[in-house]
This record gives sequence, C-alpha cells and structure tokens, in this order.
Amino acid sequence: MIILVEPDGVADAERHLRGLGLWTRRFASGASVALSVSSSSTAVPLSAIRAVRGVVAVLEADSPHPLLDAMPRVVRVGAVLVGGDQPVVCAGPCSVESEGQIDRLAGAVAAHGGHILRGGVWKPRTSPHGFQGVGAEGLAWLVAAARRHGLAVMTEVVSERDVDRVAAVVDAIQVGARSMHSQALLRAVGAANKPVVLKRAFSASLEEWLLAGEALLMAGAAGVIFCERGVRGPDGGARNVLDVGAIAVLRHAWGLPVLVDPSHAAGRKDIVIPLARAGLAAGAVGVVIEVHDRPAEALSDAPQAVDPALLAGLVR
Amino acid sequence: MIILVEPDGVADAERHLRGLGLWTRRFASGASVALSVSSSSTAVPLSAIRAVRGVVAVLEADSPHPLLDAMPRVVRVGAVLVGGDQPVVCAGPCSVESEGQIDRLAGAVAAHGGHILRGGVWKPRTSPHGFQGVGAEGLAWLVAAARRHGLAVMTEVVSERDVDRVAAVVDAIQVGARSMHSQALLRAVGAANKPVVLKRAFSASLEEWLLAGEALLMAGAAGVIFCERGVRGPDGGARNVLDVGAIAVLRHAWGLPVLVDPSHAAGRKDIVIPLARAGLAAGAVGVVIEVHDRPAEALSDAPQAVDPALLAGLVR
Amino acid sequence: MIILVEPDGVADAERHLRGLGLWTRRFASGASVALSVSSSSTAVPLSAIRAVRGVVAVLEADSPHPLLDAMPRVVRVGAVLVGGDQPVVCAGPCSVESEGQIDRLAGAVAAHGGHILRGGVWKPRTSPHGFQGVGAEGLAWLVAAARRHGLAVMTEVVSERDVDRVAAVVDAIQVGARSMHSQALLRAVGAANKPVVLKRAFSASLEEWLLAGEALLMAGAAGVIFCERGVRGPDGGARNVLDVGAIAVLRHAWGLPVLVDPSHAAGRKDIVIPLARAGLAAGAVGVVIEVHDRPAEALSDAPQAVDPALLAGLVR
Amino acid sequence: MIILVEPDGVADAERHLRGLGLWTRRFASGASVALSVSSSSTAVPLSAIRAVRGVVAVLEADSPHPLLDAMPRVVRVGAVLVGGDQPVVCAGPCSVESEGQIDRLAGAVAAHGGHILRGGVWKPRTSPHGFQGVGAEGLAWLVAAARRHGLAVMTEVVSERDVDRVAAVVDAIQVGARSMHSQALLRAVGAANKPVVLKRAFSASLEEWLLAGEALLMAGAAGVIFCERGVRGPDGGARNVLDVGAIAVLRHAWGLPVLVDPSHAAGRKDIVIPLARAGLAAGAVGVVIEVHDRPAEALSDAPQAVDPALLAGLVR
Repeated sequence: MIILVEPDGVADAERHLRGLGLWTRRFASGASVALSVSSSSTAVPLSAIRAVRGVVAVLEADSPHPLLDAMPRVVRVGAVLVGGDQPVVCAGPCSVESEGQIDRLAGAVAAHGGHILRGGVWKPRTSPHGFQGVGAEGLAWLVAAARRHGLAVMTEVVSERDVDRVAAVVDAIQVGARSMHSQALLRAVGAANKPVVLKRAFSASLEEWLLAGEALLMAGAAGVIFCERGVRGPDGGARNVLDVGAIAVLRHAWGLPVLVDPSHAAGRKDIVIPLARAGLAAGAVGVVIEVHDRPAEALSDAPQAVDPALLAGLVR
Repeated sequence: MIILVEPDGVADAERHLRGLGLWTRRFASGASVALSVSSSSTAVPLSAIRAVRGVVAVLEADSPHPLLDAMPRVVRVGAVLVGGDQPVVCAGPCSVESEGQIDRLAGAVAAHGGHILRGGVWKPRTSPHGFQGVGAEGLAWLVAAARRHGLAVMTEVVSERDVDRVAAVVDAIQVGARSMHSQALLRAVGAANKPVVLKRAFSASLEEWLLAGEALLMAGAAGVIFCERGVRGPDGGARNVLDVGAIAVLRHAWGLPVLVDPSHAAGRKDIVIPLARAGLAAGAVGVVIEVHDRPAEALSDAPQAVDPALLAGLVR
Repeated sequence: MIILVEPDGVADAERHLRGLGLWTRRFASGASVALSVSSSSTAVPLSAIRAVRGVVAVLEADSPHPLLDAMPRVVRVGAVLVGGDQPVVCAGPCSVESEGQIDRLAGAVAAHGGHILRGGVWKPRTSPHGFQGVGAEGLAWLVAAARRHGLAVMTEVVSERDVDRVAAVVDAIQVGARSMHSQALLRAVGAANKPVVLKRAFSASLEEWLLAGEALLMAGAAGVIFCERGVRGPDGGARNVLDVGAIAVLRHAWGLPVLVDPSHAAGRKDIVIPLARAGLAAGAVGVVIEVHDRPAEALSDAPQAVDPALLAGLVR
Repeated sequence: MIILVEPDGVADAERHLRGLGLWTRRFASGASVALSVSSSSTAVPLSAIRAVRGVVAVLEADSPHPLLDAMPRVVRVGAVLVGGDQPVVCAGPCSVESEGQIDRLAGAVAAHGGHILRGGVWKPRTSPHGFQGVGAEGLAWLVAAARRHGLAVMTEVVSERDVDRVAAVVDAIQVGARSMHSQALLRAVGAANKPVVLKRAFSASLEEWLLAGEALLMAGAAGVIFCERGVRGPDGGARNVLDVGAIAVLRHAWGLPVLVDPSHAAGRKDIVIPLARAGLAAGAVGVVIEVHDRPAEALSDAPQAVDPALLAGLVR
C-alpha cells in the first residue's frame, strides 16, 4: 500500500498511521509526499486509514490472488467441514505400510476423535535410495480403511500421472512441501476439481504460498486448505521452525482455513503435542498429525510418530 | 550422542532407536559400527537407549553448559516466581517516554493482572538517528511506577557502563536480542548477580542461546530466564518467525524457564495475542508484551503495541 | 565421519585432527572415546586421518549418492564439454518471445563467444496470472536458432508431460529451482537419458542437491551438471545470496561440474558480471546468463538481463 | 523509491523502467498511480528514470546514513590505503598465542606480500568455557610484531572498557560479527576516532550493516571499512554462506570499501583461497585471512587456517 499525504503535517499523519498499526516509510520529491506501508503491518480497514488527517489518497495493488480472495472460507472434505466451528483432526501414519497397519491405525484415529485419515502412498523422500512408498496398491487399502471407520480421507500426489486415480477415490488431495512450487503439478491437481490441502514449501514466503493456492483455484480446485509444517531457520532444537505467525496471519487477517502439521515441524515426538496446541492457539482450524502404534516397525519418520491415543485430549 | 552397536543386527537396533524417537546415521569400518544421533531427536532416557538389543555403549559429550544444567528451574524476580505454577505476565511500553506515561501504564498493567513491569530506557535502535530512549532519568520513573503499583520491574541494559546503576534498582536485567552475542556485556551483567531475562539473538541457534545463558551464570547471574522473540526466516506475514519449537524444547526437554515475546515476533498488533497464546501453549512460563494506551503518541514500536486491557484474558 | 580414538592422548589427537582441517566433537563413555567430524570440515585423505597418533578407527557412512560419485566429471552437451579445460558460456533470454527475438539473440550469443543457447519456453512463474511462456511452439524456434548459429541448446522442463518432446530436440534438459525437490519430474527427466542441468532449490542443502542429482542418474540421466543460482538468506541487496562456497565445495572437494547463474542470484543487471566472475573464481566450470538486447520489450526478468556484448570479456 | 506515473500509459512506463533494471509494483486509486521500486533493483541514475515517458515524479527517502554517503571512499589504515588502486591483504592468526608465534607469523605475512597484520587478543567465543584469548599482554606482542615487520595492524575490541588502550596502539579497530548490533560498543569504538573494520553480523541485512557503519561515523570514527564474512543460510558445505552479492552491491552501487573474509565463510581450509578470489572478483578491495604455520598448535580455528605462503599468489 502507498499513502499519499499532504506535505504539511506529514509527521502527524505518520504517527497516527503507526498508532493504527502500520509501518510506514516516507518518500518525497518537492511537495509530493508518499508513505509506503510494509506488508507485515497490521490489517487495518481502509476507512480508518482514509480518516487520518493529512491522508490524500490510499493506493492499493490489485490483488494477485483474486480467486483466493473470493473462495468460501469453509471447505468441505467428505463430510468434514474445515474452517468451521469445530477444529479438525487429520491423522494417520507417515506411510501406508500394509492393509493391516492402515486399518488398525484408522480404527485408532476414529476411536480417539479424528475426522480425516491421512497416509502416504508415494513418498517423496530426499534420497532416491530410500523407501518410496507402497504405491497404488496402498491407495485402495487407505481408502477402504477410512470408509470402514467412518473417516474422510486424503493422500499426497507427487506425480501428474497419479492425479486422476487419486482424485477418483479420496476426499481431498494433498500437495506436499516439495511440490508447492511445481506449477505443472498444481495445474494437474487443480484440474481434478477436488479440495486440496496445500503444504508450505520449505522456505516459501506467504505470498508464494498464497499464489500456489491461487494457481490451484485457477486450475479448478474445489477449495484450498493451507497447511503450515515448519520453515527453515536457525536451529532451535526442532526439525523445522513452525511459523505460527503465518498461521495467525492466514487466519486472523485473511480468514483462510489453515491447518497445523506439528509432526514435520517438530521431527521429534516429545514436542509434537505442544506444537499442535501452539498451532491451534495461533488460529489453526485443525491439525495434521503423524501417528503410529508400533513405531519400531514404521518404515518412515518413526522418530516423530506419536501414539494415536494422544489425539484424544487435543481438541477439547 | 554416538551409539556403538554390534555389527550383527544393526538394522534392528536402528529400527528400535528410531521407534524411541532418535534420528540415527550409520558409520562403519570393518566390524566397528557407530550410530550418530541428530541433536534434534526426541529426548529419551539413557536407560531406554542402553536397553535396546545390540547397543554396546552410549557415548555422550560433556555438557557445554554445566552451570545451566544445575540451575534451579524456578527463578525469582522480585516477589514473582518465573517457572512456577502460575504463568507470568510481564508488560509495559516499548520505551519509557515520560513519568506520567509509565505511571499510567504501570497502573493499567497491574489492573489487568500483570506481574512485572517492563520498559526501555536506553533503546538499541537499528538507526543511530532514531529515538535512543530517555536515558537514566527514565530508570527512576520506571522503578517508581512499578513500586507504586506493586509490580516487579525489569529493563534492558545495552552498555557495560550502565549495569551497576540498573542492577541497583531493578528486579531483573534484560539482555536484548542485539546483545546476546556480546560476551563483554554478558560478563558485566552476570557479575551484577541479578536474575537475567535473556532474549534470543535474531538468528541464534539453540546451543548459542544456551551458551549465552551459561556465560551469564559463569559471571555470577542469580538465574537465567530465556525469552523467545522470533527469528529470521522466510516472510510469513509477521515481522519475525516465532520459534515455538525452541520454546517447547527449552521447556519440555530441558525444563528451563522460558518466556514468549509475541510483540517483536508479530510486529503487528492484530496477531500479538494469538502469538502470545501459541507461546504459552508450546510451554512458555509467561509472556512479555508491549502495551500502550495511546499508540499514536508512542515514540517507538507503535504498530505492535496492544491495549493493556488485552492482558486480562491472556492467562486464564 | 566418526573417529574412534584411544582414551589416552585424546586431546593431542584432537589438536592434530583440527590442524588437518577437521572440526571434531568429543563423545565418551568409560574408556570409549569417539570424535564426530562436522560435514563442513576440510576434505582430508583418509590415510592422513588414520596416520594421526591415537586414532583407532575411522568410521564412514555409506555414500548416499554412489552413482554421482562414479559419474564422469566432464559432461558433454552437444559438442560442448562441461567440466573440461574451457569455461563454458550458456546464455540466452529468460523467455523465448518470438522467432525473430531468439534468432537475433542466438546470433549475439554466438558472436560474443557463447557455447550453449538457453531460453525458457514454459515459464514457472510465482503468479499463475503472469506470462507463462510461449509454449511448445517456442521450442522449435529455440532449437532452430541454436542450430543456425552453431550453438548447443538447452531448455527447462516443468511438466512430466513435456519431457519427451523436449528430450527429442535439445542437447541438455534443465531442471529449475522450483522443481529440484520434485521426485516425479526428476524421474521423468532422468529417464530421457540426456545430460541434465540441475539448479539448486531456493533453500536446498548441499546434500539435498546432491541427492536430486543421484535421483536423476538413477532414473537414467546421461550426466548431471549442477547450477548454483542463489539461496535465501538475509537481504544483502541482491535478489538471492549466491553461494560461492557451495560452488567451491562441489568443485574442489567433489570434482563435480558446476555452473554459476549470476542472473537469478543478482536480480539486478549492475552486479551480474561481478557475480559471474565470482562464481568462476570460486570454481564454476561455466556461467548461465540471461541476456536481452531490447530489455524494455522483454516479457520477463528484464531488470536482470544484460547486454549480450558483456559476454565477450567474461571468459578470458 | 516511489515513482508517480500518468494513468495513461502505465504499462509502457513500467516496461521501460524494468528495461532499465527496476523491479516495480503498481498501486492505484482512481486516477492516481504509483510504482514502488524494490530495493534490490539495479542502481539507475535518477535522470534516466525521470526521462521515461509517463513518469510524473520520483520520490525518494532521505538517506538513513548521510554520514556514510559523504565518507571518503578510500580509508587509510596506517600507511595502507584501503579502497585505492591496490587490493589489500590483511592476515594473521585467529588468536595471538605467544610473542614468538605472532612475530613468526608477522614475518611470514610480510614476506608473502601482506599489508596489515591481524590477530585476536580477546576472543569472543560461543562457549564461555573455551579459550578466551591471551588478553592485554597479547596486544603489545601483536603491535610489536607488526612494527618490526613493517605491517599496519588491527585487532578486534569486544568490550567498551578496552577501546582506549587498543585505539592507542593499533592502526584500525575491528568490530566483530557478534558485536555489530551492539550500539554501545559502536559508540565507544567510534569515539576513539580511528578507522574501523566492521564485520557483518551473522544474519544482518545490508541496511542494518550500513546503519552500524553510520553509528560508528556519528560517534567519530575516522572511516569505516566493511568486511563480509558469510551469513547464515542453507547448508552448502561451508561454515557460512559468503554473500558476494553484498560485496558487489557495496562496491559497485555504493562505492564503499569492503573486504572479504573467506576464512570464517569457509570454515575449512580447502576452499579459503577460492572464496578469497571470489570475493575479490565480486569487488572486494582486499582480503582478511586467518593463517597459521603450525595449525596443530593453534588454540582456535585451526581447521580454517591456511599456510601464509598461500597469500603470495592471491593478489596478482
């Protein structure tokens, strides 16, 4: 935002604008004075800015994400409302490992109050030599387990080629942190016309994240649910830095549905629940948590998997 | 931590260790096999690690902060216990601006349930041409206001030369983010034998932060209270990225007293309270918040100052 | 790396190992002493480490990228040797805009000593509403222009669906920073059996970057050429922080072919040439530079495009 | 910078401004249109901007560092001109360890073409339990060694209390990365009226760094020489990320004297010389390098110390 102000009384105008919550910087040439407003300022109604004495005009940029601005703030995933009155619990194993494992865990998630079952079928690992997921077979196990236990279901798609078969059976498609910047995948996923859970890339800015959501909507997505899973920053003892500020801004300034994934932020099971609570306190409309009942048998991410019983106390 | 394991059954041992919450990496030479454990692993009792089949020995590093390890986990600031059963509210203006201002705000802080008054007297600003604080005169105003309203009091010291006069009148000394790396100041502040509130530097690692605490104790500090105020990371819409993971690790893995400063993390008043709640949910033992009742008159940080009345609902 | 040492004389062994260039950290349990070695230590021959008095055994991890380790260090792109005795100049416009534009620029690149023509046909932009490239039609223009002026040619692929038609006509395929983490695209591109220029993702670690190269080779790539284009860090006046250290490590410690892209690192034309020189001085085997002769007509990235004539003085 | 433009032909004006090298963003309200210009744009003469058709006015901010803007671009350190025609070599051990060691190394530095001797007397280490330097005694050894071998001399001050005795004997005072944000130390060092070598803090922005220079000048410093030593970013195999872009901007856009410290950026001796060359290629007016002839005896930073003989080939 740029605010044009009268040359007399600029200092007064600036003080009032800062009092409202805006960080301003002054630019001038002769009698022309303009204030730029930092994008990390408080969200303030335009009318309050215009009402400040000395303000001549408030210039705004066209929104770079008009579709997102117009998107309904509650997104339906199967029978579950994300962004509504009730916080949502989405849980499941990092990887679907076997028909028995996912059925057992789906039962536990349902028993402890969960709403959506998650589980990875194709795993985008850092190493190509690591476990890459059980593949398409696991998709059927996952969906069957969810249906049996009355849960909605979502899974991540990592290849454009898998979008259709996933979209045909799940309630929401997940786009992972490694794929958020992949325009081709966003386009393919969006075209499936399903709700999408969009994780934030490792060091994406808020604007890049919002624009990835816009790309999904432009391609046809039925709705976008953001999911914060930690960003890269200085080593604070956890795997990543959970950006609760981004959660708060998405929710309180933009009104958008945003989930917190404490598992990937923590990377260690002893702080997963505190981080889940922190995300909810910041404004998240739900959690996405990795659970496992037999972590010593897990094929991926065992150190951050928590017992499904811990879901129980999480939301009220 | 390094774990020596028997060459037979390494994979089994690794699976069990990961199930416990440890991220391991395998190193070998002939029949010698060792696993290094990432420092961002779950805190697991040594006995549980030793009990894993195949583990031969668990090698540990000497703690780099033995004094901190031995420090009592509750630190008294005046009559206030930080790290005890009750969350602590520390609040006040960014800058002490006048005798009237600080008295008025101290009254408001006390009225809304606050315990400790804060206010800057010497302001370490990014620009040397900006407002640098009212100086020593403000110290007397600040202390008098706190005493009049029954609050404990703390303020930041930025110069070695000011330590003694501050230590003589306050209940705790604050070391700011810009000074955390300054060994000379840490030594001078520690020597004053007072409790110290130690903010985390802009991009300090957890270990650097802990070691700054160790330096304070080594110099004589009566106790160290950590204060997370946000680190640098990708732009998420707030001024800094509040590292709730570091709060959770300090509290849940180390048992240390840690406060959350949502004001400098947010930089915008519309998300200060959500971030305060997030910090408490992650494990913070209290909050440090900038408040102002007439933000349009504030001499610094107006865009992030919240109304003192918002303190009321914050801690139960 | 983990070094087992005799309990007597540990301090001496550590001093000698540090003198060789290793950052060590000591772990012990009873008479067992091990030193972990930081991965950002000097590359030192194993024999020199074993020769240090007190060293009992040097334990190493299996390489996570055996294919990369075995890859020839010179990669042929058309008739051009990348990683050989001559630095390579790869240049062209950010976007292919028209048949005339790319032909004109190919001529300029050839005239000023360039070896490889580059140009974007599908543009992965941050905003879905921005210019997305001219598409497949531009691919033919690009290749024709390169052939006419005796240049090798490469372009970026952003969708799995485009790999085959691109692989059929170019000398090398580029994987962009936004796609480096996309396993599905890496697999598809690798399967085309062409040389690949692999850009580093915005905040990828060296290990993640190497593993993306490994994934390409595992899928069948004819060779991998790394390309550093700047990472995210504190604002230093340029668009990104050009990591010349990573270039130096890739070249001097690993012997791998690595190019420098100063255009995306700079984001501003006044420092593109100094950054190109810095990359070459650090060890880059060539440059990838965006050029344009009519920047006011460029459809993307005009502020960082330099005049093709500046290529002339760049490599000797 | 904010550019007011005529509402007709905004798109044309924007294209031309981007062609000049500016990243613009458009803001409008009714017939008022303004373009904000990103601070990481090309440095373009004001006259060229004003000459673009459609530009109505170019609004600028007052410089936040007027003293720095007016500072002479060549700073004299003893008999050495920093920022003049000849690149400057400043070298010495991390720590002054003994009278013999520093004399021997000063001789080697002089013999291999060095101009300024450096060496730490008080060492600001991360751990308070580590070696803290030999203290004031070492200052005399350092200065005597420099004088004996015809070198200028500088050392770091970490405490306000040491400024005067250091200023009395050295040719330049160094402010370290850990102290750059310390206003009190900047004020004390500046008041000594000596040239100052100002290292960049671990994650300081360019503006914060420039403002620290301004604070030094405001307090009385005879001149400020910037020194880039690497910032925090993703792990690229070196200790820190050497920001050659910041060097290029300081030199080519601001004309300021800036040195490169490849030792702390690298943290490993095998890439110190390539990074030194990269810094010089980017525009650095000299290097600051840690050398040691007996690294196995060094009391600090041995893994990054290079042989003094390597200085010889460095500058021409």
